[in-house]
Amino acid sequence: MDRLITFKDEKLFFIDQTKLPMEYVVDAYDDYRAVCTAIRQLKVRGAPAIGVAAGYGAVVAAYQFSAKPFAECRRSILAAIDELAATRPTAVNLFFALDRQRAVVNGYTGTENGVLIDAMRAEADRIADEDMTLGRKLGIAGAALIADGDVIMTICNAGSLATAGIGSALACIYMAKEQGKRVKVYSLETRPLLQGARLTTYELSKNGIDVTLITDGMAGIVMKTKGVTKVITGADRVAGNGDSANKVGTYGLSVLAKHHRIPFYIAAPRSTFDLSITSGDAIPIEERDAKEITHWGGRQIAPDGIAVYNPAFDVAPAEHITGIITEDGVLRPPYHENIRALWGS
Amino acid sequence: MDRLITFKDEKLFFIDQTKLPMEYVVDAYDDYRAVCTAIRQLKVRGAPAIGVAAGYGAVVAAYQFSAKPFAECRRSILAAIDELAATRPTAVNLFFALDRQRAVVNGYTGTENGVLIDAMRAEADRIADEDMTLGRKLGIAGAALIADGDVIMTICNAGSLATAGIGSALACIYMAKEQGKRVKVYSLETRPLLQGARLTTYELSKNGIDVTLITDGMAGIVMKTKGVTKVITGADRVAGNGDSANKVGTYGLSVLAKHHRIPFYIAAPRSTFDLSITSGDAIPIEERDAKEITHWGGRQIAPDGIAVYNPAFDVAPAEHITGIITEDGVLRPPYHENIRALWGS
Repeated sequence: MDRLITFKDEKLFFIDQTKLPMEYVVDAYDDYRAVCTAIRQLKVRGAPAIGVAAGYGAVVAAYQFSAKPFAECRRSILAAIDELAATRPTAVNLFFALDRQRAVVNGYTGTENGVLIDAMRAEADRIADEDMTLGRKLGIAGAALIADGDVIMTICNAGSLATAGIGSALACIYMAKEQGKRVKVYSLETRPLLQGARLTTYELSKNGIDVTLITDGMAGIVMKTKGVTKVITGADRVAGNGDSANKVGTYGLSVLAKHHRIPFYIAAPRSTFDLSITSGDAIPIEERDAKEITHWGGRQIAPDGIAVYNPAFDVAPAEHITGIITEDGVLRPPYHENIRALWGS
Repeated sequence: MDRLITFKDEKLFFIDQTKLPMEYVVDAYDDYRAVCTAIRQLKVRGAPAIGVAAGYGAVVAAYQFSAKPFAECRRSILAAIDELAATRPTAVNLFFALDRQRAVVNGYTGTENGVLIDAMRAEADRIADEDMTLGRKLGIAGAALIADGDVIMTICNAGSLATAGIGSALACIYMAKEQGKRVKVYSLETRPLLQGARLTTYELSKNGIDVTLITDGMAGIVMKTKGVTKVITGADRVAGNGDSANKVGTYGLSVLAKHHRIPFYIAAPRSTFDLSITSGDAIPIEERDAKEITHWGGRQIAPDGIAVYNPAFDVAPAEHITGIITEDGVLRPPYHENIRALWGS
């Protein structure tokens, strides 16, 4: 599998996801401000992927300032890190990665630009490697649940295009394939932004997985008639009781899966858990622009001024979730107790 | 409410539905061949609406040939009726309406063009009036189920744009409003062809109904959190046991409604019942072109050659259906017995 984000010859490279699947364009970045713009424009998306890109973005800045005297180079790098941190407001991984780079700069007691840059480069590599390793670990834990011949339904894109590694929900499928298991996937197109149609079908088919695209409304009839054996989705936030917020549609999928007695799994690294939140009711649900639904590629498709409800997420309740797949194994009910046990508190 | 299809000064008029909701264009037809083309191009859609348009299409032909000697005029009208009948293969209402016009022509024993044309015009009006009356009767039966303050979810367009009258599912809502009941509607956009986003929001808002557009995947979370009190959908075919085929997504809605203990109604005129079919399993499900999902307005949105499953319909099982609203009252379980009782067999 291609790595989403790479660094070579003082340049950062990543796929422009806004052009997928129709164009596969890998852009090279040697200006950290261009990296800032790319993050803002969602050319790189998914919290872990943003974190990795930002970590390398700081290295790009360091190379840009390497001809300056050390004090000035150091000051400019720290300013660039602040600029990178201002690109997106909510992705914790962005701040986490940049905090690590800031610590490298602040912790360097020498005065040689080259040595500092090498240390930052090594830190960016570590951030990327950790994410890659985590994805494989999570994938191996999830693959243990997958049987040869499974038919798996998923929504949105919880794959290699959302993380620096091989994803969360899709990581389980990739690792099952590596283990020689044959898997068929139904990918919901995922309205309104079509991450399923655009990204999940793209990366699964590219990696040799048998994938069929359906609309979101077909989930029920496909579960009933097409032998679906598992539903696996990612998560944006998991509450302390196991309630899991994910792309809107996930709640309905959890109900449909329960009705059809199909196991329903959430795949989420431990960094996605928010133990400060005791239940899904407390997870704030972002409502997004009506135009995501009323317009398409700039063209209006619904009447002027029509009322729209456009929540970006909904919450699969813990009682519908068969298991939560993490890099440290699969959590089972009762989640409240078992999450606390894993966290050792 | 505007009548979808009207006839005035020897011309047939109807809205071009392919342009809705962005353009409201009423085209005038004084050439029956243009009517044939419009039916083929889905400018008028919905089986009852097609029947009414074809009934008037025969009248358009009659006016076109009115300057000919009677025998030639009569022959040309019958040939035009055959051409109109060849426009769509499956809409029973099309053949039904044209059979009635053919009977008028064949039953006329005089030799005056004007008298024959008047008789055909009267028959076309009767076909339209019957559909209009039927819609109001069905709507009144359904409105009796609707309480002031109800929040109703619907899918696709089972309204005044699908019939010559005020529709089926939406007829119930229109009649409830006429009775002074306040109703809020959630309209699913209805992928892939977006009849909900384009047509249902358009006609409901135009008729003063409070309507909110959501994507199909939001049905579950909206049922859970927005106080939905009823689901009402149309049907394309109702089997002898009450199983009801309708726009794909309806099956999933019926499961979600059952889970949330929300009454789920099918609104279908008796002409939609197919008593030769004993259960929904025997209703053939049309699979449509993958491009409806992979393309949008001519633009490709999913990867080349990706597998797609695109059933146009699915079947809500009788055991999920609270009642079936017809022009002769609301059928309740057990449907097998109660359908036969209504048909008097």
